[in-house]
Amino acid sequence: MVLHRDYPGQECSAARALEVVGERWTLLIVRDVLLGVHRFDQLAETVGTTRAMLARRLSALIADGIVEKRRYQTNPERFEYHATDKGRELFGVIAMLMQWGERHYGPGRVLVHNSCSQPIDPQLSCGCCGQPARLDDVSR
Amino acid sequence: MVLHRDYPGQECSAARALEVVGERWTLLIVRDVLLGVHRFDQLAETVGTTRAMLARRLSALIADGIVEKRRYQTNPERFEYHATDKGRELFGVIAMLMQWGERHYGPGRVLVHNSCSQPIDPQLSCGCCGQPARLDDVSR
Repeated sequence: MVLHRDYPGQECSAARALEVVGERWTLLIVRDVLLGVHRFDQLAETVGTTRAMLARRLSALIADGIVEKRRYQTNPERFEYHATDKGRELFGVIAMLMQWGERHYGPGRVLVHNSCSQPIDPQLSCGCCGQPARLDDVSR
Repeated sequence: MVLHRDYPGQECSAARALEVVGERWTLLIVRDVLLGVHRFDQLAETVGTTRAMLARRLSALIADGIVEKRRYQTNPERFEYHATDKGRELFGVIAMLMQWGERHYGPGRVLVHNSCSQPIDPQLSCGCCGQPARLDDVSR
């Protein structure tokens, strides 16, 4: 079956990526850390999860190199959570997900695009040729 | 706390979107249906999950209007699973996730961009002004 070669099951990079971020709370935490929420108490509130779940997911995100802890106070020690470069690269996933969510489930967080001062309207194009990259524009 | 207004917890569109798709198997099923895998047996293989899990997730995707069943045979009745327009609009999320997965977890499925015949390199721009839309280009 030809699919075997093209779809090596769990070995696909998307499958591996989803092992890391394919879980509701995880992407919401990354979203909020990317958008400037860095402290545990604030994250618990903005993500809307329990502190125990948040602590677990933050630990996993740190282990996976997506979030890092930064000490901002020494006595007592207190930490903030910031996205690593790998975490920052998830912005595209999150921006597209926010757009889809807004289209189908109503208004949410507004991201303003600095260059036009309008709510961002993320569109995909191909970095190689610059042309639009929609589902109908690709082949597998 | 100002975050209250901007982050109404679960009510954010991204949170609602993740209620629907923020689960590993769900996005993998959508990925494969978008990329042309339409039959239950093939999906079970390409997604790499159990038939029971696949059946559950497909039912949820149908209930959420992301996937639809199409009968392709009548005796006995057999169905294919196709993405609705709402499901097709998840392509951007999935393309960005595949790119991130490939960057950090090695090669996976290759999507060829028809207009340049190269592996697609999805980039975000703003539909309003056409300029790049990276994390540093947005404000909240």
